[in-house]
Amino acid sequence: MQIAIAVFDQFTALDAVGPYQVLAELPQTEVVTVATRPGPVRDDRSLTFQAAAAFDEVTEPDVIVVPGGLITRRMVRDHHPVIDWIAAVHPTATWTTSVCTGAVLLAAAGVLTGRSATTHWIAYDQLTELGATPTDQRVVVDGDVVTAAGVSAGIDMALTLADRIGGATTAQAIQLGIEYDPQPPFDAGAPRKAGEAVRVPVAQWLRRREADLLA
Amino acid sequence: MQIAIAVFDQFTALDAVGPYQVLAELPQTEVVTVATRPGPVRDDRSLTFQAAAAFDEVTEPDVIVVPGGLITRRMVRDHHPVIDWIAAVHPTATWTTSVCTGAVLLAAAGVLTGRSATTHWIAYDQLTELGATPTDQRVVVDGDVVTAAGVSAGIDMALTLADRIGGATTAQAIQLGIEYDPQPPFDAGAPRKAGEAVRVPVAQWLRRREADLLA
Repeated sequence: MQIAIAVFDQFTALDAVGPYQVLAELPQTEVVTVATRPGPVRDDRSLTFQAAAAFDEVTEPDVIVVPGGLITRRMVRDHHPVIDWIAAVHPTATWTTSVCTGAVLLAAAGVLTGRSATTHWIAYDQLTELGATPTDQRVVVDGDVVTAAGVSAGIDMALTLADRIGGATTAQAIQLGIEYDPQPPFDAGAPRKAGEAVRVPVAQWLRRREADLLA
Repeated sequence: MQIAIAVFDQFTALDAVGPYQVLAELPQTEVVTVATRPGPVRDDRSLTFQAAAAFDEVTEPDVIVVPGGLITRRMVRDHHPVIDWIAAVHPTATWTTSVCTGAVLLAAAGVLTGRSATTHWIAYDQLTELGATPTDQRVVVDGDVVTAAGVSAGIDMALTLADRIGGATTAQAIQLGIEYDPQPPFDAGAPRKAGEAVRVPVAQWLRRREADLLA
């Protein structure tokens, strides 16, 4: 089984690495990072990854993982090559998945038209604009498309997918292997849980960063 | 504030990227990946990162993050250069932290002698052998040293640290930003929670992989 993880300049690293760490443990799996061209790809902070392959070299992956980042609105505006790649490989893929605003890229590729999906809470409106129906669930399975909420939700998404692909025992073995028994010190990880004093500045700050990236 | 994340061949990617995604959001923070030499570093599956600096170029980081991997037992045996680096930078660091079996490297550097600490559940015995007192807590703060349990626990560790460094509002803002409202599909993320049918084969498999790396 080939799992292709798309990467692009300014992506959010954990969006990709969370699912990667789960899905790479599935039996007989090859994971390939794929980008406009092989070589260095910088995330939205200070990590540099090496993409292993170009989009046109990975034409029939079994599973597609598309991470997000505040750059995705700009990528839709500028029609980034990942969008055509998603449209090309989705029809033959067994599972097409996204984390965070990776869903915006799936939507731009036409994959989410008429489907339920989720994304980072800051970007529900973008999904609506692109013809999808956003929900605030953490993981949404709609047919062969699985979308996850913001950044860290990719781990939950990938465990859900591991269950579908390898069964519950395999998914639980992977969960135990990565000791995923989450105990965050606060209960502020969703907009409805975080107080206004936290939520409002975070939303303003994310929108400011997105506007800077669009400029 | 400089945050140095150590990387080395065969490290576990999520050990590093989980804390990175949290700590990089702290105000006025520079994150640097540091390795034996700058350039490509391969994880224990199929990701390649670019380390930004060599160990001897990062001499006074404020925060140290040491990931783990099944390779750490071998690294202790072979006295990997990261061990001397940890010993050198820990005395002037504000916080010295580890994820998963990164704790074994801290212990080998003498940082955990007489301290309580945690690590991946497969490696408690290694901590004992190296003079630390292992616990099965997910995050252990002992003075200026913070250790996390296996792989995914680095996210919880980093939020705990973000609270200590930046205060609760900042930590909660970061948690909301990465939408960390975990909802794993199973409750199998700790040895006491996973059934024997899951736990025993996972332990056998991890020990076999570790033995292969030692050979």
